[in-house]
Amino acid sequence: MQTPILTSWADCAPRLVAVAAGRAPADLVIRGGTLVNVQSREVLPGWQVAIADGRFAYVGPDASHCIGEGTEVVDAKGRYLIPGLCDGHMHIESGMLTPAEFAAAVIPHGTTTMFTDPHEIANVLGLKGVRMMHDEALMQPVNILTQMPSCAPSAPGLETTGFEITAEDVTEAMSWPGIIGLGEMMNYPGVIAGDPQMLAEMAATMRAGKTVGGHYASPDRGIPFHAYAAGGAADDHEGTQESDAIARARQGMRSMLRLGSAWYDVESQITAITEKGLDPRNFILCTDDCHSGTLVNDGHMDRVVRHAIACGCDPLVALQMATINTATHFGLERELGSIAPGRRADLILTSSLTELPIEKVFARGQLVAENGQLLVECPHYDWPAEARQTVHLGKRLAAADFAVPAPDARDRIRVKVIGVVENQAPTKALSADLPIRDGLVEPEGEVAHIALVERHRATGGVTNAFVSGFGYGPGMALASTVAHDSHHMIVVGTDRAMMAAAANRLAEVGGGATIWKDGKELALVPLPIAGLMSDAPAREVAQKAQALVEAMAACGCRLNNAYMQHSLLALVVIPELRLSDKGLVDVRRFEVVSLFEGSQ
Amino acid sequence: MQTPILTSWADCAPRLVAVAAGRAPADLVIRGGTLVNVQSREVLPGWQVAIADGRFAYVGPDASHCIGEGTEVVDAKGRYLIPGLCDGHMHIESGMLTPAEFAAAVIPHGTTTMFTDPHEIANVLGLKGVRMMHDEALMQPVNILTQMPSCAPSAPGLETTGFEITAEDVTEAMSWPGIIGLGEMMNYPGVIAGDPQMLAEMAATMRAGKTVGGHYASPDRGIPFHAYAAGGAADDHEGTQESDAIARARQGMRSMLRLGSAWYDVESQITAITEKGLDPRNFILCTDDCHSGTLVNDGHMDRVVRHAIACGCDPLVALQMATINTATHFGLERELGSIAPGRRADLILTSSLTELPIEKVFARGQLVAENGQLLVECPHYDWPAEARQTVHLGKRLAAADFAVPAPDARDRIRVKVIGVVENQAPTKALSADLPIRDGLVEPEGEVAHIALVERHRATGGVTNAFVSGFGYGPGMALASTVAHDSHHMIVVGTDRAMMAAAANRLAEVGGGATIWKDGKELALVPLPIAGLMSDAPAREVAQKAQALVEAMAACGCRLNNAYMQHSLLALVVIPELRLSDKGLVDVRRFEVVSLFEGSQ
Repeated sequence: MQTPILTSWADCAPRLVAVAAGRAPADLVIRGGTLVNVQSREVLPGWQVAIADGRFAYVGPDASHCIGEGTEVVDAKGRYLIPGLCDGHMHIESGMLTPAEFAAAVIPHGTTTMFTDPHEIANVLGLKGVRMMHDEALMQPVNILTQMPSCAPSAPGLETTGFEITAEDVTEAMSWPGIIGLGEMMNYPGVIAGDPQMLAEMAATMRAGKTVGGHYASPDRGIPFHAYAAGGAADDHEGTQESDAIARARQGMRSMLRLGSAWYDVESQITAITEKGLDPRNFILCTDDCHSGTLVNDGHMDRVVRHAIACGCDPLVALQMATINTATHFGLERELGSIAPGRRADLILTSSLTELPIEKVFARGQLVAENGQLLVECPHYDWPAEARQTVHLGKRLAAADFAVPAPDARDRIRVKVIGVVENQAPTKALSADLPIRDGLVEPEGEVAHIALVERHRATGGVTNAFVSGFGYGPGMALASTVAHDSHHMIVVGTDRAMMAAAANRLAEVGGGATIWKDGKELALVPLPIAGLMSDAPAREVAQKAQALVEAMAACGCRLNNAYMQHSLLALVVIPELRLSDKGLVDVRRFEVVSLFEGSQ
Repeated sequence: MQTPILTSWADCAPRLVAVAAGRAPADLVIRGGTLVNVQSREVLPGWQVAIADGRFAYVGPDASHCIGEGTEVVDAKGRYLIPGLCDGHMHIESGMLTPAEFAAAVIPHGTTTMFTDPHEIANVLGLKGVRMMHDEALMQPVNILTQMPSCAPSAPGLETTGFEITAEDVTEAMSWPGIIGLGEMMNYPGVIAGDPQMLAEMAATMRAGKTVGGHYASPDRGIPFHAYAAGGAADDHEGTQESDAIARARQGMRSMLRLGSAWYDVESQITAITEKGLDPRNFILCTDDCHSGTLVNDGHMDRVVRHAIACGCDPLVALQMATINTATHFGLERELGSIAPGRRADLILTSSLTELPIEKVFARGQLVAENGQLLVECPHYDWPAEARQTVHLGKRLAAADFAVPAPDARDRIRVKVIGVVENQAPTKALSADLPIRDGLVEPEGEVAHIALVERHRATGGVTNAFVSGFGYGPGMALASTVAHDSHHMIVVGTDRAMMAAAANRLAEVGGGATIWKDGKELALVPLPIAGLMSDAPAREVAQKAQALVEAMAACGCRLNNAYMQHSLLALVVIPELRLSDKGLVDVRRFEVVSLFEGSQ
């Protein structure tokens, strides 16, 4: 089935009026159900809908007069009609899937609208990459609306990204059809300090009448928080406590409550509504980041809404938080997010408002999924060679590239070590005494090699350091081109030859993740698009990712979510110690520091 | 005090951030009060605000760090800080005042934002007149946002207006700075029938991303209502019953509840929230039409909010319905309507959330009124001669122009009579046997003359008919150039010479209303701007209007609101019988009919 072209309400109003008036037949009528009206917050038994040109023409007690020659009539069989679900903020790349394959994975879960920030590809391919994501997004049978990424690099001066996003890029993107706003402004210290580029990006977005996404990740809700709010961010999904959620609503920001693969911020914040009784209109549900495995096994926005209800939220309020609240936030309340005349005919049939089984999904009036099965094509963009060949190492790497020469002649030396902490994004700045052999510092015990391999400009650069906490045994290496946020390549290993083999393998397949032991590849997740995404189906990617995780365990890794920990080790905005192409970064001081303790 | 130029949030964000961060002093800090947060729907004791460049920079528990050299500090003395009030839909011309004088009258009542539809002047001066209103509106120290009138003439084919509004006019107006949407689409039969011009006007508005105002004045909430909703109207203020309010919210339209000088539609509809428990977000308070006397004696939006509270509405919800709900509806939720960072610093200090005394009013950070006294200048537009000379009669009228010649020779004849009904907009189609003397039909008893005097094109046309219900005694006449919606001149009288004198008098003064008896003028309300508005202060206009009403009573008139009834007698969209320049109109059939019963 081909995606039909969506006509604007303005353009199809003559037909919508004619259908509602009974002068022309609808394309589709759904009756025999109970309508959930998120506008009035009511359940309306018997209410029916008539759809034409992909939009609701009639929503009311009896659509009989809209039925004529060619009208398909669907019997809801007593089920509820609820609006298609909206994800208020998310990164498609987190699923390691292209927009098309991400859509294919989430449509059966009832997600019909996503507000997506292609921040990862912006670091690899710049504005051009954002445009490719945006173009594939616009080809889909559901609504994928792009937030222009705001912060590439995330930490200017501390890392070199493939491309940088400028205020001019933001201004240009605001003129693209379908762009919805600015992606999360995560450089909150910059905003608070009055950084001209950050304020210029937000100003360009506001002048275009679009929504500035926020990201204030500090627990300090004093003066810095207020200064950030004055800058123009319209929402924030970084809250983790009830008081965070309340603080944001009080500033006239929308509080986005997040349930992702590794984020659990709904239960702790939803009490702002369920217990403190705040007006729920300023609360929105989102996922932020979902792995393909979560999409395949647990769901997407259906999972979030179910969870909110399980946390004690009124189902109608929970649905509002994933439909009309989101649409209103982005200025789309008359375009989507409710079952009302003129809006895109995105709806779900479900037999329970608490269990929320997603039984049929309609998008723009088209049946796109039924009982978990996708029924529609999600077209693929023709990704150009520059997007498929983004791993530029400059040379074939050898074991020697991963060696750490000792600065002087002695037996042992004290080095800084990045300490991974289970289930936490921050790392610990540790140190260890390591032996020196043949003039090279050798890891031992818990400590392994870690290298940041430059892959954007083919400089041949390899930045070496040490890491602990994974628990790997000898003879192994894991390499990944998913390496937030600059997305170079991170290689962790206990064997330098294996590190070279893993890195070279990713150059060969165009990126992804690979794990090697004793001369053999144990698992590979190919991510050929920008080294971040696969254009294979979610199930396949999830299986490969699972095989990778199992191989990591086989190499001795005991950590939960170890691959995510691996991919965050270059994230030079989260304390304490990280690795970038510039060297070891102490994020407590935002400074590049020596690998060796006692040195500058 | 001069109106300061308002800087956009985008432009002043660097300063707002600096103030909130404590790096730069605010212009104004207000502390010592309790803040009403309409975003979270909370009352926050002790919360303070810091204002810079006319916008809120800081809203929180302690603004001390924003105080520096040059910061004015206001002690709220325990009062509440509430957002300035917004009127969701209104016609300035109904106050018989220019935008400047209307603003001067309502600012002391706490109204800081008005969404105005200059529909009346559009009928007299077309797009040019709308632009004049808009230009004066933009000069004011408060927010007056123009809805482009949609329907001039209101009843195409049944009346001739001074100018007509076309779809091209609407498209042009949408490009003006500050235009906010389309004024009430009152040609609902046209929309339902698919009238191309009406749909084109709405489409032009939707394509510009602006709000289409609605006006569905029929009690039929069946198929025609649904067809109207499918056309794109985003709100409606014509509901009168609870079920009307609910029906609109269910269609994803905003239900505007109206308390004007003669509209009492809040009490009957607010139970949709207070008793039926609908989500209040889609309900908005407005006035639609207020006479200058109401503004002077009773208030404006403060009166409406007080009334809503008196009807049992939670004060915080009532305030939301006059602040954030309105702003959100028009896409301005990040610009005004709440006390939150970045928004225009429009706020009121009041010592009671139920009595709502308006003690201090700030607009854009400037103290504009205190204890009922205006403290700011409301600048006047330099209205050109074409706007001040709009009464073009073509000739000096004489008694004979108001005579009704009998169609044949007999003693008496049965004529149709417009029956005025007290406190109701609709008239009754009555008939009466009237005597013929000297070949002229003479009114007698309850029946008086009524004439529609053409005043836009100097045709010299006078259309004569009969009216009953005012109760006038002999020897009088009342003429008015306020004559909805085409705004010719309506003259009602029991003496043809007095009718001529009154009509000629209005030509002399450039329009307004005048009442004559036995050769003398009893009262005059001069309305020199378009024959609709005065640029004198509201108090003066209200006094003159009061004198007119008293003179009407002295002439025997027993009706409540008789001047309004008078000015509605040419409104050829409300049943049953009306008068236009084309003749007597039967609005039940939308046809011009003969004055004489039994004729075609």
